[in-house]
Amino acid sequence: MEKSAVYHQPCSAYAYPYDKDTMHIKIRTKKDDIQSVSFIYGDPFNFVKNEENKYKWISQRKYMIKVAQTNLHDYWFIETKPAFRRLQYGFVLISSEGESAFYGERGFSKLEKKTLISPDYFFKFPFLHEVDLFKAPEWVKSTVWYQIFPERFDNGNPSISPKNVLPWGSKNPGTEDFFGGDLQGIINHLDYLKDLGVNGIYLNPIFEAPTNHKYDTLNYYSIDPHFGDKETFRKLVQESHKRGIRIMLDAVFNHIGSQSKQWQDVVKNEEKSPYKEWFHIHSFPVTEGTNGNIEGKTTLSFDTFAFTPKMPKLNTANQEVQNYLLDIATYWIREFDIDGWRLDVANEVDHAFWKKFHHAVLKEKNDVYIVGEIWHDAWNWLQGDEFHSVMNYPLTQAIIDFFIEDKINAMELVSNLNQHFMKYMQNVNEVTFNLLDSHDTARILTRAKGNKKKVKQALAFLFAQSGSPCIYYGTEIGLDGDNDPLCRKCMIWDKKKQDEDMFLFTKKLIALRKKYQQILSNGRLKWILVDNQTRILTFSRNLGQQSLVFYFNQGEFDEEVPINKNGISYVNAWNETSVKSSSVTVPAKQFVVLASK
Amino acid sequence: MEKSAVYHQPCSAYAYPYDKDTMHIKIRTKKDDIQSVSFIYGDPFNFVKNEENKYKWISQRKYMIKVAQTNLHDYWFIETKPAFRRLQYGFVLISSEGESAFYGERGFSKLEKKTLISPDYFFKFPFLHEVDLFKAPEWVKSTVWYQIFPERFDNGNPSISPKNVLPWGSKNPGTEDFFGGDLQGIINHLDYLKDLGVNGIYLNPIFEAPTNHKYDTLNYYSIDPHFGDKETFRKLVQESHKRGIRIMLDAVFNHIGSQSKQWQDVVKNEEKSPYKEWFHIHSFPVTEGTNGNIEGKTTLSFDTFAFTPKMPKLNTANQEVQNYLLDIATYWIREFDIDGWRLDVANEVDHAFWKKFHHAVLKEKNDVYIVGEIWHDAWNWLQGDEFHSVMNYPLTQAIIDFFIEDKINAMELVSNLNQHFMKYMQNVNEVTFNLLDSHDTARILTRAKGNKKKVKQALAFLFAQSGSPCIYYGTEIGLDGDNDPLCRKCMIWDKKKQDEDMFLFTKKLIALRKKYQQILSNGRLKWILVDNQTRILTFSRNLGQQSLVFYFNQGEFDEEVPINKNGISYVNAWNETSVKSSSVTVPAKQFVVLASK
Repeated sequence: MEKSAVYHQPCSAYAYPYDKDTMHIKIRTKKDDIQSVSFIYGDPFNFVKNEENKYKWISQRKYMIKVAQTNLHDYWFIETKPAFRRLQYGFVLISSEGESAFYGERGFSKLEKKTLISPDYFFKFPFLHEVDLFKAPEWVKSTVWYQIFPERFDNGNPSISPKNVLPWGSKNPGTEDFFGGDLQGIINHLDYLKDLGVNGIYLNPIFEAPTNHKYDTLNYYSIDPHFGDKETFRKLVQESHKRGIRIMLDAVFNHIGSQSKQWQDVVKNEEKSPYKEWFHIHSFPVTEGTNGNIEGKTTLSFDTFAFTPKMPKLNTANQEVQNYLLDIATYWIREFDIDGWRLDVANEVDHAFWKKFHHAVLKEKNDVYIVGEIWHDAWNWLQGDEFHSVMNYPLTQAIIDFFIEDKINAMELVSNLNQHFMKYMQNVNEVTFNLLDSHDTARILTRAKGNKKKVKQALAFLFAQSGSPCIYYGTEIGLDGDNDPLCRKCMIWDKKKQDEDMFLFTKKLIALRKKYQQILSNGRLKWILVDNQTRILTFSRNLGQQSLVFYFNQGEFDEEVPINKNGISYVNAWNETSVKSSSVTVPAKQFVVLASK
Repeated sequence: MEKSAVYHQPCSAYAYPYDKDTMHIKIRTKKDDIQSVSFIYGDPFNFVKNEENKYKWISQRKYMIKVAQTNLHDYWFIETKPAFRRLQYGFVLISSEGESAFYGERGFSKLEKKTLISPDYFFKFPFLHEVDLFKAPEWVKSTVWYQIFPERFDNGNPSISPKNVLPWGSKNPGTEDFFGGDLQGIINHLDYLKDLGVNGIYLNPIFEAPTNHKYDTLNYYSIDPHFGDKETFRKLVQESHKRGIRIMLDAVFNHIGSQSKQWQDVVKNEEKSPYKEWFHIHSFPVTEGTNGNIEGKTTLSFDTFAFTPKMPKLNTANQEVQNYLLDIATYWIREFDIDGWRLDVANEVDHAFWKKFHHAVLKEKNDVYIVGEIWHDAWNWLQGDEFHSVMNYPLTQAIIDFFIEDKINAMELVSNLNQHFMKYMQNVNEVTFNLLDSHDTARILTRAKGNKKKVKQALAFLFAQSGSPCIYYGTEIGLDGDNDPLCRKCMIWDKKKQDEDMFLFTKKLIALRKKYQQILSNGRLKWILVDNQTRILTFSRNLGQQSLVFYFNQGEFDEEVPINKNGISYVNAWNETSVKSSSVTVPAKQFVVLASK
């Protein structure tokens, strides 16, 4: 037994409350090293007197299920509902050679009666409190998002376009170009979006700011005049809500724009500025171009986002800054009824601030969705009192590596995904913000070098996972584009230039997602066939009696794959034909989805 | 290389800010499997253009130090001060067979140039925020605690003793006995405590309650009338403060006493009681003796501490309960200037409440010490916004297993301690509340079966560790006693019946602790000689140029142990004689402490 590989941590993604009655417990062992793990558990205060009139702790025993394997590890899982919301537990491991051991609070111990009745050898989850649960808004699971970069979606009101506006789609965008996209442009296409099937829009920043991307906010209380005004925005929210579409805005709270009145006051009045403490200033002057304050220089005299003097970092530990930002966060909910906040550079803002943000925002409206922009492991922001979700780039990466760039084989894909899913609580995985691309990456079609079959495979796989999938505007009509600024091209509205096949595919995929939403949100993932040679990937999602089975063929040849029927009748969920054969033909670079009847 | 054993988790005790400028990073590998670990690190946004005009991430490389070994693992450590408070990092491991690998955000990767310049292969600590630091009051490190169970320390005012009071020390205490100990009794002995050298008193509950232990609070706003009144308590705090002694009270917030007006109101008015929501009630009636509400029954109709109907559990998610308890927590600080709160059954109260508690208490007085009663791994309460410390029973356990009960050998002791220390951040280890016994355990002298040499060894070892040591009243004069109620005997004040030798030993130990406080609080622990055969245990504590070396001999024979002088001159810190020889004689069951000059 490779004891050094065994890992369990109480009060973490290895032992957490899933809902107000249910605990989830996981333990990690070395790959293929352990043949069984059983879970010994009970209430910490439940004793009986034994024959010798001594108190003996009462426990039960259940086998755990191996739910995931990576290239290095196996993960074992069990769900339990402790009667008194208190849990004391340990593990009995039996290795493939038959060696057995007890694992608990004191590490490994000999498996003997004395250990099994001694509470101090056991892990504790002291009390399951509903108030400490990780709990995201219920609507998130059934939402399919559509991300819009407002300057590039449509110009609905040319009278407010910037002076230097370029004709729509007249060229590939440069970093400084304006094409006149605005809020009215979005309103004009809400029926298009409803027809496509999306029911959530994530908007890149819309507050007043000099650039086209508006991540350098000038005034958080006003809509950028080139995008519209508050009435237009109110109409956008209302018209969206009428169509069952929710609206999420982008909160850029890590930094402010250097043109903001606050920063300009600091530039001008230096030590005497009332906003001096709003920032992290090391010395004056702070003017760009002086004192090392040059784009990309590491000699800046104040903290910024990256090394960008145009984005001075806000001091979110300052009470005035907190009041300011929390008022903004609640203002747009209170006055305009928005449904979510996506938090820019969320990982560089302090936890203390995000906890206050969470509290303030949820108090204003109890089902607002909070999504942090965090590209890396974000467990520490996803404990229940900060974010509901993060932009799930590790999932993006795994999908691209396998489906788009053929960098990894099927086993590696499964290993990477399993490792990622095991990092977080299931509650978290059910509501992650899943995406293939965004304003910060090359577009998926470009990464696929124009191969639309690959894009469809990747989209279908994304939609088959737990979480809330997002389509970056234009993906559905075949928009391409390399890294920023090219991933921010103007949306194509000329039907003849749109990829109709991709549109119909996307629409169908969204409909499928919605039809099977519950099982896709909450169903257990089970890998069935993972073949590096044929590049066939088969997995099921299972919930109660229901099951969905996905067959992806990333290989060069059509493949006939057996259906593991087990007495279940299946329908082809994509074309709604019944399945009579005991195998399914999966064409090369295509997929098949079967649903239990 | 045993890759399955490698563990690192960003934003945890494996990667955390130690102070506002300094990060601590750890990684775990299989014992004796890895010969070197180097740390590759840099600012995530610091790029240079290379020859091909492509951006390349700039990193540095440093070797990590192997700081601890357990029976299964090695732990590697490094400290770094990121210039811009942002850190991107990974590890290069070289196995004892010479195999090398890179370990980072995506797990193991081949060690090649491409990996080392690709930021997405690296772990992140996005930004070091001072506001998110774990920060305990500075005074805690230099405090030696003395725990008093008030009913048993001294009867200073017989006029307020309970009617059924027994003559002081007239018998071994039963669970229901009263001996008349009170606050005046403590005031009377403050000079004694000052002479002993302690500078912190932890008092078991003193608020009005029917039992002798007072964990079944009746009224949190009044001093138990048999203990004194508010004026007596004010005098106790003031007289203690005059002598440089701090006062910590016991907050029993998990549950209230069944005799409290709140619970009695529920018993009487049931559904109509305004206090109905203060508790977790499943059905009425809630009277003891009905509806399964019998001591120890698992059929209780309401939640309690354990299965004790006398201690109904408070619903700390209820706003009124929160207001009530937070006012109590701040009241005793505001009005009486207490210095700390020890939190009873802290692990069973919700995190959301403790965060509010932390905020409220520290706002009232910014250096109050908050200690949770948690017997198990408590990492989740020690992240900076709940507790400063826990009662460090895992340390107790390891010391007893080796020094008192001879259950484990020297290597096992070191393994257990290393594993425990590695669980927490160093900031946490520096302020844990360390103890050998308490009102909840048998007394150390009794566990040692009366062997005072063993008790001295255990005390000396406790005092040699980071954290804030505590002496349970009477240990210093040889008081014994088995588990509750016997560990709550009356303090012995008759000099002839006190163990003078133990008193002088304890006093000397406290003086030594205070003299070398800084190195004992912050100095790095290094195990030097760990010999299962002779049961010799040698370790040093090192801080800057200073070092303290401890030699414990748990064996049967006196042993001569070499001094690793390295050109350093040592004094014997215990008897202040100079050390000329190149070895030291450690008598059986005794210890020696050397200090660098």
